[in-house]
Order: sequence, then C-alpha cells, then structure tokens
Amino acid sequence: MSLKINTPPPHGGKLVDAVIRDKDKAISMAVGAIPYDLKATRDPVSGLPIRNVYREIMSIAYGFFSPLDRFMTRNEVESVLKERRLLDGWLFPFPIIFDISEDDLKKLSVKEGDRLLLRLKGQPFAILNVEEIWNFDPKDLADRTFGTPERNPEVVKRKFDEKHPGWLIYRSMTGIALAGKVYVINEPVFKDPYNRFWYPPARSREEMQRRGWRTVIAHQTRNVPHTGHEHLMKNAAYLGDIEPCHGILVNAIIGAKRLGDFIDEAILEGHEALNKYGYISPKRHIVTFTLWDMRYGNPLESLLHGIIRQNMGCTHHMFGRDHAAVGDYYDPYATQILWEKGIPSFGLNAPPYDLDKGLKIRPVNIKEFWYCPKCGEIAYSDTCAHTDIAQRFSGSFIRGLIAEGIEPPPIIFRPEVYRVIVKWWRVYGYPFVNKKYLELKERELEADVPPMDVPMKR
Amino acid sequence: MSLKINTPPPHGGKLVDAVIRDKDKAISMAVGAIPYDLKATRDPVSGLPIRNVYREIMSIAYGFFSPLDRFMTRNEVESVLKERRLLDGWLFPFPIIFDISEDDLKKLSVKEGDRLLLRLKGQPFAILNVEEIWNFDPKDLADRTFGTPERNPEVVKRKFDEKHPGWLIYRSMTGIALAGKVYVINEPVFKDPYNRFWYPPARSREEMQRRGWRTVIAHQTRNVPHTGHEHLMKNAAYLGDIEPCHGILVNAIIGAKRLGDFIDEAILEGHEALNKYGYISPKRHIVTFTLWDMRYGNPLESLLHGIIRQNMGCTHHMFGRDHAAVGDYYDPYATQILWEKGIPSFGLNAPPYDLDKGLKIRPVNIKEFWYCPKCGEIAYSDTCAHTDIAQRFSGSFIRGLIAEGIEPPPIIFRPEVYRVIVKWWRVYGYPFVNKKYLELKERELEADVPPMDVPMKR
Repeated sequence: MSLKINTPPPHGGKLVDAVIRDKDKAISMAVGAIPYDLKATRDPVSGLPIRNVYREIMSIAYGFFSPLDRFMTRNEVESVLKERRLLDGWLFPFPIIFDISEDDLKKLSVKEGDRLLLRLKGQPFAILNVEEIWNFDPKDLADRTFGTPERNPEVVKRKFDEKHPGWLIYRSMTGIALAGKVYVINEPVFKDPYNRFWYPPARSREEMQRRGWRTVIAHQTRNVPHTGHEHLMKNAAYLGDIEPCHGILVNAIIGAKRLGDFIDEAILEGHEALNKYGYISPKRHIVTFTLWDMRYGNPLESLLHGIIRQNMGCTHHMFGRDHAAVGDYYDPYATQILWEKGIPSFGLNAPPYDLDKGLKIRPVNIKEFWYCPKCGEIAYSDTCAHTDIAQRFSGSFIRGLIAEGIEPPPIIFRPEVYRVIVKWWRVYGYPFVNKKYLELKERELEADVPPMDVPMKR
Repeated sequence: MSLKINTPPPHGGKLVDAVIRDKDKAISMAVGAIPYDLKATRDPVSGLPIRNVYREIMSIAYGFFSPLDRFMTRNEVESVLKERRLLDGWLFPFPIIFDISEDDLKKLSVKEGDRLLLRLKGQPFAILNVEEIWNFDPKDLADRTFGTPERNPEVVKRKFDEKHPGWLIYRSMTGIALAGKVYVINEPVFKDPYNRFWYPPARSREEMQRRGWRTVIAHQTRNVPHTGHEHLMKNAAYLGDIEPCHGILVNAIIGAKRLGDFIDEAILEGHEALNKYGYISPKRHIVTFTLWDMRYGNPLESLLHGIIRQNMGCTHHMFGRDHAAVGDYYDPYATQILWEKGIPSFGLNAPPYDLDKGLKIRPVNIKEFWYCPKCGEIAYSDTCAHTDIAQRFSGSFIRGLIAEGIEPPPIIFRPEVYRVIVKWWRVYGYPFVNKKYLELKERELEADVPPMDVPMKR
C-alpha cells in the first residue's frame, strides 16, 4: 500500500479550456453571431442583483467546472436533478442554466443552431452555440435543486423559500433556457486586487508543481478570516498523507453577495494578510478565487467545491460545520454526511469518492474551533474538554463589533486582517456589502473587458 | 477507493499470547525446570542497572512484540541484523537476546533442550525453553545493531560508543545467549500507578472497540509532557482518514532510564493529567505503557514502536524530530527518512508499509512546535513564519528550571502536569532519575510477583 497521495486528475479526466486566445479565430466565431448583452438576474422583490451569468461562463470556460463545458439541456438538467450527474455520467450538483427573458428571445428571434455573441460591459465576451431552447418552471426547478424535507429527509430540515439566496436565484430565472457550448472569445482583465488571485485550474496546477506541493488542502471561504477560520485552515491542513498537506489553497467564492456579507476585496486580501504577516507561512498558503454566485446548497455546494478544487489540483478539501450554509434549511452537518456516507435521496448512494465517475478529492471533515481560556488558545471541540467555559466564535458578533467601529480583540481577529477591512471600508464607505456596493459591483464586476471589434461580415 | 481506515491486524497476523493463566498448567511447566534468578544488565563502568530482561519477557509474552514469541537464535539475530526481519520474514528491528554469564551457565549446567524456570523477585515468573545456546561478540553485535557511519551513511552520523545507552546495553551483554520460546507462568501484579495504565495489545484493542475508535494515533513518550509535546499529540492527531483520528494512544516506554530523565510514575501521571484536566479530552486520549529498556535506536526504535502500537491496535503513529534519539549519532530526521523512503543499508529498501511482511500502521511525520509570541500560541514550524522570534522548546532548559524549584511558565508547562512532578519529587526526594532511583527501581521494578509454589517433582 503506497500511502503517498498525488495531484488528482481533473474531474472527468481533462480540464475544459474554452478560452479562444487566437484573435482571428475569436473574431471569426463572433462574425454573424447574434449580439446579446448579458444582464443580471435580479431579486423580483428588491430588484437587487443576485447573479450574473458571466461568472458561470468564466468558470465553465476556464475549466473550474470541468468536465462541464456548456449550459445544460433539459435532459442534462433532469439528469442532474435526479442523480446529480451530467449526461456523460460525471457527478455534478447544480443545474447550470443560461436563461433569457421571453422579450429578449423574441427580440433576438434566436433559434436552435444559432450562435449568440454574448457581450459584457458593452464588449464582445463569449459565444454561446444555441443547441437547444427549452422551458422550465423556475419554482419547481428551485425546489428540485435544493431538495425538500419530504424528499430529502436525511439532510433537508425545512422547506426552501425566497429567504434562501440560492433558491431565490433559480426561482428568479425566466423559465426559458438556451443550452449549448460556450466559449470566452475576449478574455476579461481582472481589476486590482482580483488579478493577483486569479489561478484558473491549469495555472493553479502549474503553481502547485512549481512549489513542489504533493498534497494540497482546499479551504472554501466567503469570509474575512477570524482566528477560528485561521485555525480551521491550519489544523485541517495536518491531514495529508504521511505528513501534513504541503499546501493550503484558499479559494474564495466571488460573486453576488447578501447584504451584510464581507466585501469581496477584503475577503481576498484578508486571507492574504494571514500569509503576508506570517500566521500561515506563504510557503504553504495561496489565496485564489472562483467566480460563482453562491447557491448556499450546503452538501450540494460542497460537491461543487470538491469539483472546483479537484480541478485546481487539490488532494484534500476541508469541510466544517454549516458548510456553505445559510439559515437552517439543511442539517448543520449535511456536508459531512455527504462525504461520510452519501445522501441517497439525491442519488448519491455513497460518498463522492466511492462513486463511479465520482471525485478523487478527499474530504477532511472537521468540527468546531473555539477559544478556551483554560487551554489559553483556539482549541478544537473534539480535543478541548472545557466545554463549559469555551467561547464559541460568532460571525455576527464579530461583524457587530466591526460595524460599530470596534476592533475585535486579537485573540479572535488578527490586527493585520482587521486593517484590510478598514482599508476597504474607506473605499466603499461601509465595511460590509450594502445595496450601494451590490449595484456598484454589478456595474463594475470583477473585471474589465478589453475593446474588440467584430466586423459585421467577414 | 474507500478512504476509511480501520484497526490493522497485529504484526504477523496474530497476537502472541504466551501468558499461562491456568495455574495447573503453569505449575506443570515449572516442575523440573532449572531455576534461575533474573538479574539486571549493568553498566560495566558505573555498575548501574541499564536493563532487566524481565521487561522483554513481558513484552514478548503479552504480545507487544508479536509475532516474536521467543528469544532469538543466532540465525534469527543474523537475519535481523542483515535485513531487520525475523526468520519468518516479518520486519523486526532489534536482536532480542537472553544472555547469561559463563559462571551461571556452568553453575546451572544448562544445555539445549532444557527448560529454565526464570524467577523474578524470588518468585517463579517465566519459562524459557532453551532451544539453542550460542555465543556472540557483544561489541560487534552492538555495532551491527545500531549501524555505523560507513555502512549506514543515510542516517548514521557518528560512531556509536558507551555514551549511547542502547549501544551500551548490547555492549554490556555477556556474549552467551539462550534462545527459545518464553512463557509467563505467574503474572506480575503492577504497582500503583502502573496498574491503571497496563493495556497489553489484546486489552488495548478491546478498549478501542469499546470506545468506538476507528482510527487511533500512537504517541511515543519518555517524558512528562510540556506544551510542545501536548501540541504534537493534539495536532498530529488531525491526521486520520476522512476526519481526525478518533483516539490518541500515549504509550510510554517504561524501563531502565538515564540519569536526569523524568521519573516513570510522573511520565504516566503527567500524561494522564492532560486528559484529567481537559487539555485533551479523555474521550479521545488514553495513557498506556510498554515495558522496554529503551535502545534509543531512532529509526530502528521507531520500527519497534510501529510494531508495538500496531499490535495495540493503532492505525497511525506520529514521528517527530529526534524520535527516540539521544546525542547526535543519527540524523535528527532519521526516523522520518525511514518512514518516507526506507533505509536500504539496513535492508529496508522502502518504507515499512511498502515492504512485504511490513507494517500496516501509518506514519505521521511531523516537524517542530514552538511558542510564537506573534501568533500568541504554540505554533507549527511549517505553518508559522515568524522564525526569528519563535521560541523553541528546550527539554534541558525546562528540566533546569524544575531542578531549581522554579515552576515553568504555563505556556510551556501545564500547572497540573507540574503538580504531578512535585508529587513524585516528594516521594523520591528528587524530580529526576538519579542513582538512588535507578537502584530502587531495579530492586522494586514496576510489579510484584505473587508467591507461587513449585513442587520439586509432580
């Protein structure tokens, strides 16, 4: 039995690369395509942007979602909803749908076989080969995507509703889907600071090889890290093979956020501060991001996280309590249940690594960290027995302090990380996501798209 | 690929149980055997006891050394020295030799085929079936056991000499060996506090099953734990399978010690204090011991440790810097080299888990822990990058403080653990092993042997 673990192959065997870097080829693909300006999916009540499909296009084209290389057809979505598998059998948790309004459909008079030239911020950005146009009931899709207490009693604790931001994304779709392969023909240029954290799978794998990392553990984040997150990272990283994981890959999910969330730029630079100031050696730690409007699907989201980070070259993925969760829709340990024994009602009869065409990335199921005044340190809930005096981390308590301008004590928040929050607070006028930030972010996005001329006809 | 790891089989497939619990059978084995009082091996210069073979008999008979069930013949010792394997092929690092003086040999007029009734503290204790009587050169045996810089350049940094306590044990043997199977016929009764830490392999495995531990990591100790040891234990224990190890098994090596070492009783109760006072939850932590006069053979000792703890049911074994080392005879990471790639010059062409008839226990190679004032905690040397201000643990510094009656600061020594040292200091008049303790220990040993009458003839 060899005990050493090596970089896993991409999910599906091969990284998708649907970025057309050859200008001539890109233009020839664009010529004759029907132009369409991408637009945000918005909350029908508040009108706030909750999703921009450009992020899904980026994640498909740069290989984060490999082997998925397209927006799904009706059959593929059915397959995903029934057994969380693509049509070619590989595990995949969520319907990935390019939806368009009835108005736009008519205006464009697009039909199957057409090519759409997707424009972003006024510039040509991507090509969608329209292979199928199909209809769906958004509410039904949303329910089937996340599950119901009746159908998925192992993990779903209550009915999903519009308070759940992931359910709301599907619920707010138009009901008309264009399915087909998608290509980025004009690479967006990331703004500062996103640019230095952009490690699509191929580059991420190169970087790991360059650093000599055999084992790498992924950390999912949508937070500026407090010391509880830091200790989750540092300690879960001990799980490697015959020695701790060589590397820790922080992969932030960047996209539309909820009000009160941390600012995306602060999330990235906050994690970076941990290595910049030596709390986690930069030799062992890298901060990256993936574009995705989070669905908060707890176990299902964890499956997507596994796919993304396996594609990026990680051997391990840490999963804590309430992974990618919001509210109490799911069991707090739903993700760990998936990775421990599977969730049959979702078609996952075994953990993802035990399923045919499943994942190769290994789960690291971790419980809680708390501050223990007796141990005098951030302690692990399965190790420290001082449960009566343990002080649990509360994200909302910490956010409350920050909102009132109080720097959290260093035992729960590193001062250098706090300074990152203050830096972006100054930029945006508020330390957290508010309506203004959401609209600004939707307008500006994370990247600019360079000018590109597409002649009417070659 | 199933990722869950389960209790490994004993080394060699089956636990040795050479304890005769049936009184009649025990007596019938003793009748007609030649009585011989076990005696200490002593340092020829200082005269201090450095080994008592009763400990080897206990470890053989209770299965700690499975599949070894005997004192080795000349051929078996040759096999061990050449390729660290028993005659049946299973890995084993050290010659296990029952030596006897020429005087005693003559006095007893023992010959091959005889049975020896080994007496301990004046009582019948064990039976040795003398299958072979053979001679050896103690110095040559000692050199070949531990290696030389010329023959073992991968890990041996300088020539062994009488300052090395393990080399000295072999060097001080008589040169006459009695080989053959050994049985305990009269179970010693451990004194307090040893009795509550006595978990021979069969009992240890039962206890793990009772506690529902799938994965258990072994911690080797010969120290009262400072917080560096505590953090080694707590953090190495994260390495499990899909979650941290369920249990941590501390296995202290109890036997003849060096001057200045910690008192055996304090070692056991010091580790116990960590769980008693909740620093490591008693739900996850158990303290045990094995009788063995340590050979300080670094990589070779680690192989024995692997065998002992696999037999006890552990799935993992943590190995730090300078594992079971003394002085600078071996590379500080010699043990990790063995478990990472093997040591061909010792006949170990691959790590023990990759060799046929090798071990099933998995290594956890861990670097250093230090106190970092910037991180404000005990930090791991591969994680914390504040190398210029890191404060390394120094066992001799801590012992120096204690010897002067100064309680070490709580960040490096838990107060409850210090109190254990003080408790045994009061008992023995000195906090560390001194000549008086060594002689007292040799006289008293760790156990008493109940009276047992053996009739001259049935």
